[in-house]
Amino acid sequence: MIYIDRTISKPIYEQIYSYYTDEILSGALPSGSRLPATRKLAEELSLGRNTVDKAYQQLVAEGYIHSKPGSGFIVNSIPSGICSEPATALPQHKTILKTNAPEYDFAYGNMDNSIFPYNQWRKCINNALSTMELADTIRYPERTGEPILRKEISKYLYHSRGVRCHPEQVIITCGQQHSMEIIANMFDESPRKTFAMEDPGYDGIREVFLNHKFRMEYIPVNDDGICMNNVYSLETDLLYVTPSHQFPTGAVLSIGKRKELLNWAESTNTFLIEDDYDSELRYYTNPIPAMQSLDKNGRTIYTGTFSKSLSPSMRLAYIIFPETLLNKYYKYYHRYNSQVSTLHQLALAEFMSAGYYERHINRLRTLYKKKQAALLAALIDVFGDDIEVYGEGAGIHLLLNVKGTLSQETLIEKAAIAGIRLYSSRPLYAVPSRCPDNQLLIGFPTIPQNNFKKIILLLKQAWYSE
Amino acid sequence: MIYIDRTISKPIYEQIYSYYTDEILSGALPSGSRLPATRKLAEELSLGRNTVDKAYQQLVAEGYIHSKPGSGFIVNSIPSGICSEPATALPQHKTILKTNAPEYDFAYGNMDNSIFPYNQWRKCINNALSTMELADTIRYPERTGEPILRKEISKYLYHSRGVRCHPEQVIITCGQQHSMEIIANMFDESPRKTFAMEDPGYDGIREVFLNHKFRMEYIPVNDDGICMNNVYSLETDLLYVTPSHQFPTGAVLSIGKRKELLNWAESTNTFLIEDDYDSELRYYTNPIPAMQSLDKNGRTIYTGTFSKSLSPSMRLAYIIFPETLLNKYYKYYHRYNSQVSTLHQLALAEFMSAGYYERHINRLRTLYKKKQAALLAALIDVFGDDIEVYGEGAGIHLLLNVKGTLSQETLIEKAAIAGIRLYSSRPLYAVPSRCPDNQLLIGFPTIPQNNFKKIILLLKQAWYSE
Repeated sequence: MIYIDRTISKPIYEQIYSYYTDEILSGALPSGSRLPATRKLAEELSLGRNTVDKAYQQLVAEGYIHSKPGSGFIVNSIPSGICSEPATALPQHKTILKTNAPEYDFAYGNMDNSIFPYNQWRKCINNALSTMELADTIRYPERTGEPILRKEISKYLYHSRGVRCHPEQVIITCGQQHSMEIIANMFDESPRKTFAMEDPGYDGIREVFLNHKFRMEYIPVNDDGICMNNVYSLETDLLYVTPSHQFPTGAVLSIGKRKELLNWAESTNTFLIEDDYDSELRYYTNPIPAMQSLDKNGRTIYTGTFSKSLSPSMRLAYIIFPETLLNKYYKYYHRYNSQVSTLHQLALAEFMSAGYYERHINRLRTLYKKKQAALLAALIDVFGDDIEVYGEGAGIHLLLNVKGTLSQETLIEKAAIAGIRLYSSRPLYAVPSRCPDNQLLIGFPTIPQNNFKKIILLLKQAWYSE
Repeated sequence: MIYIDRTISKPIYEQIYSYYTDEILSGALPSGSRLPATRKLAEELSLGRNTVDKAYQQLVAEGYIHSKPGSGFIVNSIPSGICSEPATALPQHKTILKTNAPEYDFAYGNMDNSIFPYNQWRKCINNALSTMELADTIRYPERTGEPILRKEISKYLYHSRGVRCHPEQVIITCGQQHSMEIIANMFDESPRKTFAMEDPGYDGIREVFLNHKFRMEYIPVNDDGICMNNVYSLETDLLYVTPSHQFPTGAVLSIGKRKELLNWAESTNTFLIEDDYDSELRYYTNPIPAMQSLDKNGRTIYTGTFSKSLSPSMRLAYIIFPETLLNKYYKYYHRYNSQVSTLHQLALAEFMSAGYYERHINRLRTLYKKKQAALLAALIDVFGDDIEVYGEGAGIHLLLNVKGTLSQETLIEKAAIAGIRLYSSRPLYAVPSRCPDNQLLIGFPTIPQNNFKKIILLLKQAWYSE
């Protein structure tokens, strides 16, 4: 329950606001939950209804909730790709306008549902069910993943990414954070117990190693990826990199730096974690072979996920350990059951072996290439030099630096009033103050392709008119 | 590769045997893998072919591998419910007989596939696919689980187990070990950092807390469950119990002890983890309400799984936290994505709300009741007082103490030669020497009901005839 503290200087509507942002961000109030009616809450808390209204309108403006005619106020889905932090303090004395649910949501992590090959996937799921029905007994999945899927993944990665591995090196997991949890557990007893990662970088992974109490090292990134000068002074067990498409800047790690990294890892007994999260989605050049494919000394832990290429709802990902690390893995995990359902593993194995997966990737690449091009064209048309764009040519997101005096918070809030939901890139920075105050991270897969010009015009109006 | 050390006294065939048992138990050689042909391996290691043959036959006899005409030797599926340890030493100078793959496998954890309601499950899966197809976008599952499934679980548990909770207290996980991993992470920073559990108990859970470097306390069990005298002297954060059906002894925690435990937990600031793993499968009395239903003070973390009641291949389980612990959960996990696929969550929610789940449990109870009765009758008919049986009247396994001079290893080995795979209960004991040397753990779901008499006769012959 909300507890209103009248002894502190924080305005009451902010206390209500803070309570709900905490509840929503923590997941205690999941998407689709209904907030109490304003009148009811006002009564319960013995407040004027205006105070509650004001708090709710602020939540609407910032995209936490939306109002649904006849139903009251409903919690929005907060995308999971980026883990937002609660806003630290509310700007005071602001006019809150009535707004609707965001019409256009630039969430990173959500995918275009219209292109997903439901017929083929349904076929594979039903075939997998039949396979399971015909089996003698119902069993646990194989501990490290179904052999047939591990084989398909190793074949596919060799073919598409140059990754060399035996199926025995492939461990099937429930997503990139699960992969990192496994690696954190394996290195938990290391004397150095240090984890290094690019900064900015994926906050969901930073969180896993912070939770495991690793000493953290954050390495800056420039146009061709991680800064080697900062790498050479590291003493760490693990260095996490995104060589094909740095998250979120989009930088590609140059071949020279890749070799330098591999040599450095060999000479310092470090393992590199290569996160190849959306490597297939490169639009104007061929996909860049994985760093693992250059590695002669088994220093690369290669990780990938089907969240970007297929669906984040499936929770399917994998780790490919160098052979030298398999014993360490088994030492920790030999008594653990697999956490990934047999049905999904068998279905995905058929989906890959039948060629559906590659065909889907090709369609996805075509679609997202068009969408990104349309978005870029609209941005240039409407804003010209007033916006700097990073990360074009690959992936499913862009970084925008909006020139001028408006802060992230203002940019996001003004857009929300116009029905456009935008996102701050701040959670991706280990030290939040290092984040440029005008930087936004926008994912575009779920925006209809023909709407970009209209939306960007709307955005300009929202930001600069009046 | 196998390294043969000729400087040690361990016979060479045992070195080969140990190498392969390690590889198989660790999962490095998964089920279905082929061992090198005996001739080829003998050549590679510069050994006589007989030596390799002897090692392979031992592996066959113990059920690690089977010979497949035309294909050589293939690794068997080692069930995951019980995590076996490699045999410590091989008995010397033993005549190894040629055997086949086990015809009857008393593995704990595997389920009877013939009763699984594939038609209804298929319908729910396909409806879930349609729901997903009709959605606007593809999203991550809700962080703590899909609201619709959390609601169904809380309804079902109230109705069937007396458990009282709001859907917000339900966290969907990928299995009991995943649930324990979450709890271990949450209590990792506790000053006491102590985990107490029943002994014997489920080794898969012991392993999670050992891996997390908790101080461990093991509490003996008698006819009505955990020994309270040993509980009163505990200083621990967590005490793990299986009140409805102690694993593996089958003891039921008496109502008096339940209340004592709850009072003790309240007065010592301890949390009880109630594992209600196969509570629905009670054959001659009504299911016993969960301990959580008696808990007035929020000291019980209730955990359950669909592995025994539906299928271990699905990897679906849940934790129900007392409200007082939700903040602690969110503090660690608020930036983590769910690890459970949306498809399974939606399908299971419909499966439950349509009443299929309850109907399936009822059919399962009838079937397993008959199977257990048939097995018990056969054991009494054939062995009379020569076998003590524990755990009848519930669940999907029995504990057997076989009177006489034969050790576990010999009982298992002789049975294997007759095509019957049996299992040691030793991994369930924290101190292996506490395990009675004549104790076996046998699961019966996958054995055809009409075969028990025949199998038990075969077993007697295998054990006692010359």
